[in-house]
Amino acid sequence: MSGNEVNDPRIYGIKTKIRVVPDFPKKGIMFQDITTLLLDPKAFQDTIDLFVERYRDMNISVVAGIEARGFIFGSPIALAIGAKFVPLRKPKKLPGETIFEEYELEYGSDRLEMHVEAVNPGDRALVIDDLIATGGTLCAAMNLLERVGAEVVECACVIELPELKGRERLGGKPLCVLVEYR
Amino acid sequence: MSGNEVNDPRIYGIKTKIRVVPDFPKKGIMFQDITTLLLDPKAFQDTIDLFVERYRDMNISVVAGIEARGFIFGSPIALAIGAKFVPLRKPKKLPGETIFEEYELEYGSDRLEMHVEAVNPGDRALVIDDLIATGGTLCAAMNLLERVGAEVVECACVIELPELKGRERLGGKPLCVLVEYR
Repeated sequence: MSGNEVNDPRIYGIKTKIRVVPDFPKKGIMFQDITTLLLDPKAFQDTIDLFVERYRDMNISVVAGIEARGFIFGSPIALAIGAKFVPLRKPKKLPGETIFEEYELEYGSDRLEMHVEAVNPGDRALVIDDLIATGGTLCAAMNLLERVGAEVVECACVIELPELKGRERLGGKPLCVLVEYR
Repeated sequence: MSGNEVNDPRIYGIKTKIRVVPDFPKKGIMFQDITTLLLDPKAFQDTIDLFVERYRDMNISVVAGIEARGFIFGSPIALAIGAKFVPLRKPKKLPGETIFEEYELEYGSDRLEMHVEAVNPGDRALVIDDLIATGGTLCAAMNLLERVGAEVVECACVIELPELKGRERLGGKPLCVLVEYR
């Protein structure tokens, strides 16, 4: 796991199951597709296990998963470590009282929302997404959690694109990733 | 579980954790909110366990989860029974070759997409969503799976709104639910 000096042979098997699709969502973009990983029950379980082995003794009380692929990884991690699962969602999906953070996209901006009563001061949070690119979404997620008084212990992604320098935008917050694409 | 004569005391605990929010997404609608269930690790785990206990010996090879709340329940179920997890997604999210089905909304229509190569003839599929209302989304999901030659063994939802008669639209396909709201 990058930045954490963890090296596990299961990571090689995981990387072979991730597919790189050229020209998606548009020409010139290489898209890292985790749906092929999800088709291999062993590699998918290994992915979850690597995170669970890392976080189960860190006293994490909240796993915050970013819509929508972050739900696929965050939900089983939350269950395995016995933490609350808090979905961070696109606008107008959450029915209770919410707070939101905007983040920049290549063209325009988008918004991430969180139920305010889902997280409490003193909660220890782990933020999960499938991939970190420029880090804008993870920053928005961390801000949401910190605004209600939670401590963000770490961010975790299956994939990092280090050349986009997303890690540098996290304000020194630890980031754990399994696979890098350069 | 409705229609299956399963009665388990864990269901009562699950129901107490689901919140009903009035007037969401608009006036007059009662919204069944599963995010409060996800904040209770015991009740969330019980929810997953009830489905896993039902499906682990049914030789299911594919769990198809409907975006986005279906991912939260479908992913841990797929892991626990050792099946492929196939996300059924909103338009333009999947990078590979897809097929789609349209389904009706109250105003207009929406589309569900699936990677064609994710499912094979002979696959035995379970379709997961958080809630069945009119059944339109589940029908679209079943059609996607059957078009590529999979057999849909059952649909499973945490919540059913029986007065909307979604079950009748499933063409006799079994539906397993934990909690009903009338």
